Amino acid sequence: MAHITLPDGLPGIRGPMAFRPETAKPLNELVDILLRGPHTLSPGERELIATFVSARNDCRYCQTIHGAIAAHHLGGNEDLVRDVNADPEHAAISEKLKALLVIAGKTADSGRRVTAEDVARARELGATDLEIHDTVLIAAAFCMFNRYVDGLATWAPDDPEFYRQRAALIAQHGYAAATLQGEKK
Amino acid sequence: MAHITLPDGLPGIRGPMAFRPETAKPLNELVDILLRGPHTLSPGERELIATFVSARNDCRYCQTIHGAIAAHHLGGNEDLVRDVNADPEHAAISEKLKALLVIAGKTADSGRRVTAEDVARARELGATDLEIHDTVLIAAAFCMFNRYVDGLATWAPDDPEFYRQRAALIAQHGYAAATLQGEKK
Repeated sequence: MAHITLPDGLPGIRGPMAFRPETAKPLNELVDILLRGPHTLSPGERELIATFVSARNDCRYCQTIHGAIAAHHLGGNEDLVRDVNADPEHAAISEKLKALLVIAGKTADSGRRVTAEDVARARELGATDLEIHDTVLIAAAFCMFNRYVDGLATWAPDDPEFYRQRAALIAQHGYAAATLQGEKK
Repeated sequence: MAHITLPDGLPGIRGPMAFRPETAKPLNELVDILLRGPHTLSPGERELIATFVSARNDCRYCQTIHGAIAAHHLGGNEDLVRDVNADPEHAAISEKLKALLVIAGKTADSGRRVTAEDVARARELGATDLEIHDTVLIAAAFCMFNRYVDGLATWAPDDPEFYRQRAALIAQHGYAAATLQGEKK
């Protein structure tokens, strides 16, 4: 049971977002820009960063929904999402993304763990300043989302099919629009 | 030196915000609602929560600027800010705020550390669902801001007077407006 009284039937972050629409608005705007806005990293790559951080923070709802969205963008490749969470250095992703995931993982522990060497490695592998900036901010933002979802003890459905369907809706319409659609249901 | 090339002369979060105004907008909106919007917790109390979490995360820029803003709202009482950071249970704040700071501190470690007992204690001391929600989200948001600021290795001025002056500007105009003013300088 959640720590506060939330609207019925909305899992994960959707309960608190319906409870407090004033803060839901900028939160959805932020994630729409970071994960879906025009970018040199694909939506699938950015969702992998969000999923990797959420898995590291052990947030079941966030890692499952963002893993499903990442897989949706990656042609349904759920194995790749699992591989990246378990061992990014040996997953079938670009060397640049591996270097960015090191930065993301360290940011999740503490921003002060990110070293000039980590950033130099990413840059040598082709990462731009914007990609490095957004990797840090995606990782930092999911340290917020994970704590928001778990700090209020929200519930997470068990059925993987729930997340796949929701992922398709978010991939098509975006976070802000999907949140509004979810509340109307 | 920051890990990426940021506009000159802007300390802490202001460098990355000027670098990426698209994400600065919802970030400032979020913090203006959470720390300055209409509320049963005073701006000073909410800034104390933000400062306490930033100190716990050892983010020098965030704990110093939000500590200065908290002190500004609390009649210039910088000693109280220091007391709360060092030992909230024995600081001269309300019992309700002490209970909320326990929730904030645990949220900063991991949302899953917040217990039903922590929330029940806050509620017995008069905390509402909205106050509990916002305490969790303020703590979660500062876990983001702290990592954003430190993950990019931004710089923080040494002079306490810098923070006091900036605090007065933010207290008067708000975060979004102060960010724009800061960039024009």
